[in-house]
Amino acid sequence: MTATTDDKLASAAEVKLALTDQTKRDLSKEERLALIKVNLAETLDFDIIEKIVEEGRHPRIYWGTATTGRPHCGYFVPALKIGQLLAAGCNVVILLADIHGFLDNLKAPIELVNHRAEYYKFCITAILNAVGVPTEKLEFVLGSSYQKSPEYIMDLYKLCSVVSEHDAKKAGAEVVKQSDNAPLSGLLYPILQVLDEEYLKVDCQFGGVDQRKLFTAAKEWLPKLGYRERAHIMNPMVPGLHGSKMSSSDPDSKIDLLDAPEVVAKKIKKAEAAPGVTEGNGLLSFTEFVLLPASSLYGDGEFRVDRERDGLEPLVYKDVAQMHSDYKNDILTPQLLKPAVSKALNALLAPIQAAYQASKEWQEVTLKAYPPEEKKKKVKKVKDKGSRYPGAAKGDAAAEAPAEGAEAAATQ
Amino acid sequence: MTATTDDKLASAAEVKLALTDQTKRDLSKEERLALIKVNLAETLDFDIIEKIVEEGRHPRIYWGTATTGRPHCGYFVPALKIGQLLAAGCNVVILLADIHGFLDNLKAPIELVNHRAEYYKFCITAILNAVGVPTEKLEFVLGSSYQKSPEYIMDLYKLCSVVSEHDAKKAGAEVVKQSDNAPLSGLLYPILQVLDEEYLKVDCQFGGVDQRKLFTAAKEWLPKLGYRERAHIMNPMVPGLHGSKMSSSDPDSKIDLLDAPEVVAKKIKKAEAAPGVTEGNGLLSFTEFVLLPASSLYGDGEFRVDRERDGLEPLVYKDVAQMHSDYKNDILTPQLLKPAVSKALNALLAPIQAAYQASKEWQEVTLKAYPPEEKKKKVKKVKDKGSRYPGAAKGDAAAEAPAEGAEAAATQ
Repeated sequence: MTATTDDKLASAAEVKLALTDQTKRDLSKEERLALIKVNLAETLDFDIIEKIVEEGRHPRIYWGTATTGRPHCGYFVPALKIGQLLAAGCNVVILLADIHGFLDNLKAPIELVNHRAEYYKFCITAILNAVGVPTEKLEFVLGSSYQKSPEYIMDLYKLCSVVSEHDAKKAGAEVVKQSDNAPLSGLLYPILQVLDEEYLKVDCQFGGVDQRKLFTAAKEWLPKLGYRERAHIMNPMVPGLHGSKMSSSDPDSKIDLLDAPEVVAKKIKKAEAAPGVTEGNGLLSFTEFVLLPASSLYGDGEFRVDRERDGLEPLVYKDVAQMHSDYKNDILTPQLLKPAVSKALNALLAPIQAAYQASKEWQEVTLKAYPPEEKKKKVKKVKDKGSRYPGAAKGDAAAEAPAEGAEAAATQ
Repeated sequence: MTATTDDKLASAAEVKLALTDQTKRDLSKEERLALIKVNLAETLDFDIIEKIVEEGRHPRIYWGTATTGRPHCGYFVPALKIGQLLAAGCNVVILLADIHGFLDNLKAPIELVNHRAEYYKFCITAILNAVGVPTEKLEFVLGSSYQKSPEYIMDLYKLCSVVSEHDAKKAGAEVVKQSDNAPLSGLLYPILQVLDEEYLKVDCQFGGVDQRKLFTAAKEWLPKLGYRERAHIMNPMVPGLHGSKMSSSDPDSKIDLLDAPEVVAKKIKKAEAAPGVTEGNGLLSFTEFVLLPASSLYGDGEFRVDRERDGLEPLVYKDVAQMHSDYKNDILTPQLLKPAVSKALNALLAPIQAAYQASKEWQEVTLKAYPPEEKKKKVKKVKDKGSRYPGAAKGDAAAEAPAEGAEAAATQ
């Protein structure tokens, strides 16, 4: 099958699953497929996934992230999708691209990058645990564990011999800087990312729609080396809290996973949210792609907006469509939405922060991965990165990568 | 030192060494340096070599060749220079770039490429033995023995992160195809060739002047990884037998090392050589860069042109300047020159062919490296290659690579 865009992608509303208990019982094949598709913007060759699910097996899906700056609340967006994939009985591989993290800042010693990879592992696991997703089907793989192997390198050389400079550039067009002065590594990263599918032995790669050109290239390139085509599934680009603007250079504007509740509330309060405007509304997006799915996975599947101060019943949402409608009609005002988002996000962060407090190891890794004096510099650096790999350019808002868009979602 | 062009490069005439016996006695430091410089078109940072020789040590110099088509008589040009380097007490490393040979034709099994590397080794050693150069200071290294190692690969990734696409393209401008549709490997090869200097632990790289941009890049790039700058020495571009024209697509026009004397004579007879015109004259160039140095290394240092048929004394040359003068004045006619070149070349080939006849191993390797049915196809392929690595574009005559120019020198 060579389908490029998927016909009917399920929306959170369409998937009328009692997701509340989905991690506790066996899902039907249809439910599994629906849960894999929920909130996706697009799929390529989804029949590969369908076939595996039809046969009662577990699709193996990978998502990659370069281990650079501290994962912040923006990571909830891909993490929640990963949570849904796990809940749908997929095997998920998270590639911690430590070599890319290292290349991103050659001055940082390799040990620092190793600590960062450890830190990422703690964070992502904690996020998934926070929404009650069983993680026994989750696997972390360090890029350095195979991206320096002789087999991988021969395939790297080979792929570079059959892929043109033009095609490599095109594949990375939305995620890699496209200037003549950009480092050569920018042309190499698409090659690596495609090879990763084979070396991680996955059936599918997951990423943002900004990865589309790269995913299309993967379909074409892998068979050149005699490897099979993989399926690809894509998250939409999620606008930041401040809408389509770039995230500010103020490092404090990002919400860290370990930020105290009052800090979270303060940052959310500053978020841009014009009354009645749903388009590019970061708070609504964060609710749609993080808070509602999280509630579906672990809670009652609802997002609740208190109106006690006004002596009114709370607004209770099961999907974002009703929220959009109420927001447009100013029933759901920014003044009501902000504290509701803060409250739900803090509820999500609470178990993560408890896990951090309980783990001496995680605390130690944090200090080694992000030594206090380096913190400011590093956080700044992350802001120039794309979704996955170093050297990526920040696109316009619509083309922002999931991690980036997500990053923005937690920023103001 | 950042000298780019060398001031006074020794010509064969200037080096008034009794080279005849140079392999049998110890040379002075001045003689060693003169012999290293003889016939070179240019050097970069030659003081690095000077210092080593001044200290009575042995400069380690490398020359690389991709193991693709059968080495033909054109290989005499770099081989003779290598002979001079060895005679001058240098340690010479010949990189048999088997990975590049493999990438050049992905359809060829890796075993074939291994056999070809063996074949190259036999040929180059036989050429040097034919001119009496001791080869105990000669080392062959297979690219695959280190170009897939984790250390090398990390440096490859690193260098790709600090070198821009623009600079990589510039470095390969004269040796790599410059179209948008050229394979990505073309941008990677300059990176590898620069890293090779460090991994082969050499003091200097030797190549044709078409490698100049790459050598200049090496000076700049290696320090970016904390490695030292190397010296670079360059052969001039040697025109083919047919002057500045491209070599024909007729595979029989190349003189193979194993061609019978009458075949050699027939091919030389067909060579283009306008009377009185020395410029771009392939026969004179071959004499200058192969036959005279070979005679200096092993014979009496003379090139002899019989005129018995005309009842005249032979013309005897110790340098090319007198030959050029006589050729311009039609004293040395093409009709006289051609049989003289044939005779000298056949004398050079005789010990090589004897060595081949005496070595069952070499004969077996030949059959495995170039199976008869593949011969024609392969020879054709080689014609599109540059001096060193696959993917190289054939430049204009003046920019032809040494091996390429050399190839042409043996072609018509």
